[in-house]
Amino acid sequence: MQSAQSAAVQQNTARYGLVRQVNLTYGQAVERVTATLKEQGFGILTEIDVKKTLKAKLDKDFTPYIILGACNPPLAFRALSAEIDIGLLLPCNVCVYEDPATHKTVISAVDPQTLVDLTGRKELEPVAAEVRTKLMAALAAV
Amino acid sequence: MQSAQSAAVQQNTARYGLVRQVNLTYGQAVERVTATLKEQGFGILTEIDVKKTLKAKLDKDFTPYIILGACNPPLAFRALSAEIDIGLLLPCNVCVYEDPATHKTVISAVDPQTLVDLTGRKELEPVAAEVRTKLMAALAAV
Repeated sequence: MQSAQSAAVQQNTARYGLVRQVNLTYGQAVERVTATLKEQGFGILTEIDVKKTLKAKLDKDFTPYIILGACNPPLAFRALSAEIDIGLLLPCNVCVYEDPATHKTVISAVDPQTLVDLTGRKELEPVAAEVRTKLMAALAAV
Repeated sequence: MQSAQSAAVQQNTARYGLVRQVNLTYGQAVERVTATLKEQGFGILTEIDVKKTLKAKLDKDFTPYIILGACNPPLAFRALSAEIDIGLLLPCNVCVYEDPATHKTVISAVDPQTLVDLTGRKELEPVAAEVRTKLMAALAAV
């Protein structure tokens, strides 16, 4: 049910992310959210394996953690056409990680509303609202 | 001279970016800023060719535009260790584009101070200040 699914997606305390804890392994969560993002029109343009990067560059151990750069091309085009510097805040990051405290898998997405607030551009608000709805739906459907 | 160089880096009106217009072609600017970021300890983890992506996905013509995902691993590690969800705001985007209005080349970097303000975490402020100083230096040295 959509209402039950939506209830599972929470805005985190820091107010810049939409966060959901899932009963999946880290690997399953990465695969699932990639698929549900695609259903909402987001392609993954970039992937940063944070754990691998920190190990390779610093020889530090870190929890399994990936940053997926999700992009919905028509919405990105609308945003860039209104505000050329908005590329500084694109693509929409979706993170999957194993919470070091609980060992549960967490999926989070940046809150586009928060980012658009930084621009102070009213005309971007409908774009942010649309992106936010789609990201919430992708998280809820995992 | 450092002071003259720094004066050329401006905070843009939207208050989330550090912006510099340069007398270089788009291609030269991408090459130069990649090198000056490296001098400040930033590797480029991701590259999104916005013009190519919009052409491929939407058949839309857009100005030459690249989003470089710059990462200074020790500073990223400090940030992630303090705030697990900060990956939503990483890496630091550096954009190079040809301004459609003036046809001048512009280099911009996201202002890490603005992003850290979103987290409301005081302990991240020294990290943000250090990243900001390094990004300003990279832009000034182009």
